[in-house]
Amino acid sequence: MLLTLLTTLLMCLPVGEAQTLSSPDGNLEMTFVLSEDGSPNYALQYKGGNVVMPSVLGYKFRGRASAKTPENYMRVGYDTLDFHSGFRVKDVQRSTFDQTWSPVWGEESRIRNNYNELAVTLEKDGIDMIVRFRLFDDGLGFRYEFPQQKGLRYFTVLDELTEFRMAGDHMAWWLAGDYDTQEYNYGESRLSQVRDLLPGTLIDGASQHVVAPTAVQTSLQMKTDGGLYVNIHEAALIDYPTMTLILDDEDFSFKADLTPDATGYRGRLCAPCSSPWRTVMVVDDARKVLASRLILNLNESCALDDVSWIRPVKYMGVWWEMITGMSAYAYGGAKAHGAESGNVRRYIDFASEHGFDAVLVEGWNEGWSDWFGKQKDEVFDFVTPAPDFDIEGLNEYAHSKGIRLMMHHETSSSVVNYERCIDDAFDMMKRYGYDAVKTGYVGNIIPYGEHHYGQFMVNHYNRVLRKAAEHKIMVNGHEAVRPTGICRTYPNLVGNESALGMEFRSQVLPHHVTILPFTRLQGGPMDFTPGIFEMDMSKLRASSRQQIHSTLCKQLALYVTQASPLQMAGDLPEHYLRHMDAFQFIKDVALDWERSVYLEAEPGDYVVTARQAKGSGEWFVGGVTDENAREMTVSLDFLEPGKKYVARIYRDAPDADGVSNTYETGSEACSRYEIIEKKVTSKTKLKLHMAPSGGFAISIK
Amino acid sequence: MLLTLLTTLLMCLPVGEAQTLSSPDGNLEMTFVLSEDGSPNYALQYKGGNVVMPSVLGYKFRGRASAKTPENYMRVGYDTLDFHSGFRVKDVQRSTFDQTWSPVWGEESRIRNNYNELAVTLEKDGIDMIVRFRLFDDGLGFRYEFPQQKGLRYFTVLDELTEFRMAGDHMAWWLAGDYDTQEYNYGESRLSQVRDLLPGTLIDGASQHVVAPTAVQTSLQMKTDGGLYVNIHEAALIDYPTMTLILDDEDFSFKADLTPDATGYRGRLCAPCSSPWRTVMVVDDARKVLASRLILNLNESCALDDVSWIRPVKYMGVWWEMITGMSAYAYGGAKAHGAESGNVRRYIDFASEHGFDAVLVEGWNEGWSDWFGKQKDEVFDFVTPAPDFDIEGLNEYAHSKGIRLMMHHETSSSVVNYERCIDDAFDMMKRYGYDAVKTGYVGNIIPYGEHHYGQFMVNHYNRVLRKAAEHKIMVNGHEAVRPTGICRTYPNLVGNESALGMEFRSQVLPHHVTILPFTRLQGGPMDFTPGIFEMDMSKLRASSRQQIHSTLCKQLALYVTQASPLQMAGDLPEHYLRHMDAFQFIKDVALDWERSVYLEAEPGDYVVTARQAKGSGEWFVGGVTDENAREMTVSLDFLEPGKKYVARIYRDAPDADGVSNTYETGSEACSRYEIIEKKVTSKTKLKLHMAPSGGFAISIK
Repeated sequence: MLLTLLTTLLMCLPVGEAQTLSSPDGNLEMTFVLSEDGSPNYALQYKGGNVVMPSVLGYKFRGRASAKTPENYMRVGYDTLDFHSGFRVKDVQRSTFDQTWSPVWGEESRIRNNYNELAVTLEKDGIDMIVRFRLFDDGLGFRYEFPQQKGLRYFTVLDELTEFRMAGDHMAWWLAGDYDTQEYNYGESRLSQVRDLLPGTLIDGASQHVVAPTAVQTSLQMKTDGGLYVNIHEAALIDYPTMTLILDDEDFSFKADLTPDATGYRGRLCAPCSSPWRTVMVVDDARKVLASRLILNLNESCALDDVSWIRPVKYMGVWWEMITGMSAYAYGGAKAHGAESGNVRRYIDFASEHGFDAVLVEGWNEGWSDWFGKQKDEVFDFVTPAPDFDIEGLNEYAHSKGIRLMMHHETSSSVVNYERCIDDAFDMMKRYGYDAVKTGYVGNIIPYGEHHYGQFMVNHYNRVLRKAAEHKIMVNGHEAVRPTGICRTYPNLVGNESALGMEFRSQVLPHHVTILPFTRLQGGPMDFTPGIFEMDMSKLRASSRQQIHSTLCKQLALYVTQASPLQMAGDLPEHYLRHMDAFQFIKDVALDWERSVYLEAEPGDYVVTARQAKGSGEWFVGGVTDENAREMTVSLDFLEPGKKYVARIYRDAPDADGVSNTYETGSEACSRYEIIEKKVTSKTKLKLHMAPSGGFAISIK
Repeated sequence: MLLTLLTTLLMCLPVGEAQTLSSPDGNLEMTFVLSEDGSPNYALQYKGGNVVMPSVLGYKFRGRASAKTPENYMRVGYDTLDFHSGFRVKDVQRSTFDQTWSPVWGEESRIRNNYNELAVTLEKDGIDMIVRFRLFDDGLGFRYEFPQQKGLRYFTVLDELTEFRMAGDHMAWWLAGDYDTQEYNYGESRLSQVRDLLPGTLIDGASQHVVAPTAVQTSLQMKTDGGLYVNIHEAALIDYPTMTLILDDEDFSFKADLTPDATGYRGRLCAPCSSPWRTVMVVDDARKVLASRLILNLNESCALDDVSWIRPVKYMGVWWEMITGMSAYAYGGAKAHGAESGNVRRYIDFASEHGFDAVLVEGWNEGWSDWFGKQKDEVFDFVTPAPDFDIEGLNEYAHSKGIRLMMHHETSSSVVNYERCIDDAFDMMKRYGYDAVKTGYVGNIIPYGEHHYGQFMVNHYNRVLRKAAEHKIMVNGHEAVRPTGICRTYPNLVGNESALGMEFRSQVLPHHVTILPFTRLQGGPMDFTPGIFEMDMSKLRASSRQQIHSTLCKQLALYVTQASPLQMAGDLPEHYLRHMDAFQFIKDVALDWERSVYLEAEPGDYVVTARQAKGSGEWFVGGVTDENAREMTVSLDFLEPGKKYVARIYRDAPDADGVSNTYETGSEACSRYEIIEKKVTSKTKLKLHMAPSGGFAISIK
């Protein structure tokens, strides 16, 4: 098999100006070549084995406008400009980079950025395009660059042709490609099965546009039969449409598909400019995927001069009660208004008592009585509180108790309206002392015909980030584009949703959180809103039959397996009051990390991670499993040798079960847990049981 | 012929629930009927003769969403909801209205609004739609109304089916239907010739989208062989797309064509709501078209509590020198920057000396060096002056001389950007003392795929008006939608372009200004920028071969024939200095009128109008002709009998010629004029010669 592939590779790579590039450790080798017709191709090998077969690079641009004629007086047409063949190599530059940098917050305090670089300047008809490759030990990044030059200033993309030709029918953990939502379940299958399984992964939502029957989103995690973990994503998505991958399920190749704008164009560019980085991570151990900093390293360093105001935030919210239908977002209806001042004060009291930083209040403003699914232009103004939400008094009350309120800007995807109002909205936030905003983009986008992941919206999200930074406001963007490491450049982007979160309750499959760290979290942290203690939704709303399929300990583990500087305790205060011993872990767990160790991991099966808190030096360990129970042996050899620690272990009880709960049986088996304290050292090996859809959490002092 | 048509009419009108409505004077009769399949129709007769043959009313709406199936999991489809047949008449209401109102400014100080009304409530499947007809002595207005009701709240228009079936192959003065521009020449032809002649009327522009080979814009002026003047337009275009008319040139009927949004929908409505008024003016004398207030009467009364700050404005501008290429909009290029402070002061000095109110300065701000035709999102910020434009000093200087500067907001059609910036922009205007803004929408609209005349943009223009009113700012909108009488409701809309203006120089045909009062000006005043004294463009820019085809006296006449509270003296101070005797008319002419008398008029041929100034009681008379010379006898019987007046007459010299000038011959013959003073009374009849593309102007004290 390997020989066949190698032969194919050699046959496909025409002789000529081949350029090779090796990773610093020599395991990866990238080959760039122009074929006889001047078409650029690249290929990638790991220890001599093919990972990416020779794959196309290039574009189709909009070319010259057609002349008007008596027959064609009504509409101007445009030629297609071939920017994928007919090139010559004009210049080749090589360099090496090795630097260690410190993020403002993150999974570790120091990140090494080490790569070898090859920049090939291609020329066609007097126009230059640079393809820049960076080869790291854990993968490849490459992008297209368009210098400002005579003959190229403003131009329009019809299609980006970039291919990723896989060497086989790999296993994959994939999300259906959609221009408007990531709130689907992951498929877990061979590439050849994507087409059949994709419809079953979809979840109805307020805005969705499935791209194609075999389209999948990035970050896409794959595993070869040879045991290599291959992950395709993009980094530094700025002023460019988001890439989806369209799978050819006969030869297992992917083609880039850029999110079109309302007129069908897939990018409006102005030189000098560049594409985002296209990334192919290749590692031989699943844990190395989680340890990879490829995406962050390919982003620009921090653009903010002052980051002193950016801080980790542990928060509660007047939110779950509305999500579950207990109370209402809207003021004045039949159901109680969640954001009513007295109710908000109750959350502030609880959050303050237990050491939280903030309380999110949704439904605080006017507009909620008639907003959903209407594609109304003017809905919310972001400054007018509901009559029973005492914005001034509540902020004063919160501040007196060491709590900040977190602002909520649901835009209803009327982005034109949000952009009209945002200056006033941010000014008002600062007036009352808010320093963080959760934004929301529920529903189809206005401007009509634009998509959540098109260039217009990518620019919008980044515009909001920049504007927020000017106001020293942290942003937690929901329904926004999947992150691509932008948080390195704008560390006030402390969270994103951009995947199925706990709000989907019974629709979250048990394996979901064992996949997220390999995929969605590669680009940045997620406001997953874990910490749900009551799994039986009928307890919150009598008419609900929904059950969350997770043990309570798995909920605790998520605070470690899914690192984020912004973590919510999603459930209601009254539910925490019933399990204050377990709640202690949520109170204790850190949000920002000195170091992370990925102990065990396999996508779709399990993840066990240990992290050392920045500052205190305490360790926290979390483990989660899919629908299968597992026995795990956790070696604590990351601890300082010779030092004695006390570990507090939160683990599923032997008879706990996070999967079998139904409305009829109730969810009592989900919340069977044990908490034990134990003296440990770096030599300790803990044997831990995880129930079906279970997990464990450990704090080590 | 008449008999045949009547027979056709009777055959088409099925027996049943026919309703008739007469105009107050009884000359017009409208018939509404439901045909056997429940399709609503209307017809209009003038003195028993057919003007509008039975014509369809109704809509196609977006209906139910298709269910998702395994085969159709990717995209939701929608049924078409037939809202043009299957109706029953649920209710009929009749009423009469007669009221006289006073506009804030306009062609006369008191306007009578007198009509008989018929409101037919149609019901289908439990949903009501009201068709409301108002029949005036000079025409019909009707609109669709959608009360808020169970089963109808948010809905989407696929097509408005309204027809206007003409009774013959009328002569017509028409503008090619386009979703983005009105800057075309008028065609003058039989309806049957529109298709052949339309391409020849088009002018290349920065944004254009011709609707169809026989599509024409409103206001559309027609004339029947029987001598009736029929004009189709719309009134009160609010939260709805602009209507174009698609001509069926075999049976001479028009169908409404609503400007689609970026996704192809033709209206996103929320009950309670209504369509704009569709209007059919029918009069037996061309002068009555000019005297009609049908469009204003169908608009809502003034929405502003305080209008004291709205004032007529006579202005000059740092503009013509850029339009003609003498100087540059952009700072820092090879060509001198027009808005340079010293140059602006020169205009302020001249404008102040000659009693003007304001000076427009274009190119005053950053962004002009790279803006045109790029569809860039972020171009202008509307607050950053060019380095050589001393915004504070110039405003102080202007104010010290009794002049206000007029702000210029060229948006480059990046409406998303303008809406982001407009609050800051208006705040800055007020800070420096600006009270009027000229807005511009050159280029294709952002949001991508939207059109200048779509609902999104209609809402934008009205949003700008409302926001400007809050800041006490008057608006002069260029490249905006053709006006539909909105200035009655928002009298701070003191001007619009929305047609070919003087800036098109040699492209303005001699008959153009004899058509505008019948068409474009029906909806509101135009910032036509007349008063060009130098017709030879090579005098301004050596490389130009352009010649304006107009006599100087015709330029003067336009200040009267084209009433507007906002009038520019478009030419350069140095050109006026050469003809100060003629310039006196521009200095003298009023902007707001007590009374207007339409002395002679024929579309495409000539217009002679007399107007009495509000306040002073002085009279001004203007006459313009097309390419043909004419001898006119002007009776001054509008003057107060027995009173003696002095008339100052500005007339073409006998050898003047506004048509024959070429680059080779020069334009000297255009500026041959005579000025005489004469004592006149109400019995005086003036014989006046108009040169080819000539005219005359008279001031009477």
